[in-house]
Amino acid sequence: MPEQPVTVDPADWVCPLPLRETGRVVLGHGGGGVLSEELIENLFMPAFGSAGGPARDSALLDVGSGRIALTTDSYVVQPLFFPGGNIGHLAVHGTINDLACSGAQPVALTAGFILEEGLELDVLGAIASTMGRAAQEAGVSIVTGDTKVVGKGSADQLFVNTAGVGVVPPGVHIGPERARPGDVVILSGPVGEHGVAILSVREGIDFGTEVRTDSAPLHRLVAAMLSGAAEAGDPGAVHTVRDPTRGGLVASLVEIARAAAVGVEIDEAAVPVPDAVASACSFLGLDPLQVANEGKLVAFVDPAHADAVLAAMHGRPEGAEATVIGRVVGDHPGMAVARTAFGTTRVVERELGEQLPRIC
Amino acid sequence: MPEQPVTVDPADWVCPLPLRETGRVVLGHGGGGVLSEELIENLFMPAFGSAGGPARDSALLDVGSGRIALTTDSYVVQPLFFPGGNIGHLAVHGTINDLACSGAQPVALTAGFILEEGLELDVLGAIASTMGRAAQEAGVSIVTGDTKVVGKGSADQLFVNTAGVGVVPPGVHIGPERARPGDVVILSGPVGEHGVAILSVREGIDFGTEVRTDSAPLHRLVAAMLSGAAEAGDPGAVHTVRDPTRGGLVASLVEIARAAAVGVEIDEAAVPVPDAVASACSFLGLDPLQVANEGKLVAFVDPAHADAVLAAMHGRPEGAEATVIGRVVGDHPGMAVARTAFGTTRVVERELGEQLPRIC
Repeated sequence: MPEQPVTVDPADWVCPLPLRETGRVVLGHGGGGVLSEELIENLFMPAFGSAGGPARDSALLDVGSGRIALTTDSYVVQPLFFPGGNIGHLAVHGTINDLACSGAQPVALTAGFILEEGLELDVLGAIASTMGRAAQEAGVSIVTGDTKVVGKGSADQLFVNTAGVGVVPPGVHIGPERARPGDVVILSGPVGEHGVAILSVREGIDFGTEVRTDSAPLHRLVAAMLSGAAEAGDPGAVHTVRDPTRGGLVASLVEIARAAAVGVEIDEAAVPVPDAVASACSFLGLDPLQVANEGKLVAFVDPAHADAVLAAMHGRPEGAEATVIGRVVGDHPGMAVARTAFGTTRVVERELGEQLPRIC
Repeated sequence: MPEQPVTVDPADWVCPLPLRETGRVVLGHGGGGVLSEELIENLFMPAFGSAGGPARDSALLDVGSGRIALTTDSYVVQPLFFPGGNIGHLAVHGTINDLACSGAQPVALTAGFILEEGLELDVLGAIASTMGRAAQEAGVSIVTGDTKVVGKGSADQLFVNTAGVGVVPPGVHIGPERARPGDVVILSGPVGEHGVAILSVREGIDFGTEVRTDSAPLHRLVAAMLSGAAEAGDPGAVHTVRDPTRGGLVASLVEIARAAAVGVEIDEAAVPVPDAVASACSFLGLDPLQVANEGKLVAFVDPAHADAVLAAMHGRPEGAEATVIGRVVGDHPGMAVARTAFGTTRVVERELGEQLPRIC
């Protein structure tokens, strides 16, 4: 074999077609060839910036020792952009929040895109940049990724999957099955904003006040709650944490009631609902307790330390409006009931399917 | 609050609509409500069986101490079923293989589905069962998942994302940047089968002999190679491992050449190509070295221990046909060249985009 079999400079083998010239996603961006590499190097790497980048098929993480938490979520929200955020915020915050609800501090995210041929690269770039910034602000890295492209009409613009890995500190045991009678039910803030924000833009309805998504990462709030409980003398006082996304607060309460075989009772009037959300829900015939949130949590806490946990929540901006909304009882296991403004009670039950499709 | 606010038996609140009655995916299966739960309990849990189940938003793993590998891939192959396998095989094997190529032994997978409204539940069930069996056979658990449903026409039947976590044994350092001049290039078996299997059914072409996908997990083969190297006296002798999927063998060789800034030279005649693949590629005008594989790896190994590693590969069924196809040189860094049957050399270069869309 000759020593110099070719005289071509490797630099000449770079694709002559600038990524920006077409301005749109083409099938080749998903082919694992030169265009795929261009997309990674010219779009994803700058977008994910110091939050990392999907340069390799698999990322190595040093997690010390112990337990890790692993989660995944796909995001198919329509429209991609809405008041207060875009699908990129949900993809980062939603996966961080799933980890946070198991008591884990998030370490790394993956990003898997499914793109429709013809999608504007500016749209993809804006969403990827959002993800990079959101990850950086949360102190998490996007460490690896994947991109597939399907033909026009075979997907709706852009779907993204994020998986996440977190580390669970020693002694932390949080889970839906750990709720027990006597527990105090704490909600971190007002409900219904995310779902109404999506609906307002999707349906083109003006509710007077703009309702923006509440999309936010909750891992620091959970860490503060765990610290508050530990300082009060019982590191295990926070039994259950859940973020009420699809299906809203009701779905979370029912799932916990079923998982722990306990009854949950809430005081409907104690659940904060912003005025604009309340009027939008009234107009649309929706129950705000069943509307998706993307930056709220509901926690089930040992009554002896609920005040300490609540105080810790109030010390953080995302928990400033945290409030007690109910308690756990031994009666009617598997069921959640709400005391209405009229003093009666009603069983709250999850929707059969979904109130609002493609909300996240 | 009355002690018994309702007299309804919780069992009565189970959805009265049997999952099988419609036989198809409806939007509500992605809504996080009762139908979502039914899908998880009646379809995914039995399908994933002892390989696990996506019962919770986040799964906890005890990984001991040290380094973990994290990877993700989305699968959009069309058709969903093809000779020798279906999208479920790819989703499990592909993600296991990404982990294996970083030297990790896979531990857990996630499964995120995006379903088109109207998809037959039998199709979903068959694919999920395939994933469960494939995971079990590989000794890996599917530990958590997510399902979203989009309206008819907003996706093409079914997309699935799998993320994977593996543990990297101490002392193992494998990566594309570690290839170095002198390394022997070993291919684990014949190339081109997966891509041709997909094309044969997609295009309805009969190539005489049926070509089946080579989809297979490679982590045990990699473990055997690492053991072989360690027994030969150098646990670090396996420098680089890559599975040539999209873009085929050529894409892997070029990526490694670029990552390590070395030249790669292969002997084209040494690359095993099954007869049926060769004639199909000839008919279709494809280069078999650029056709996707789903159960092959290419390894760059220290020449002093290449024989030991090759012998270890021959000891496993998925490495029985492993063979040396080339070597690494210091010349023409970033480039791969092939010596042709005529004794000349040609530069092999990745496709600009993709030869075959939606191959995995």
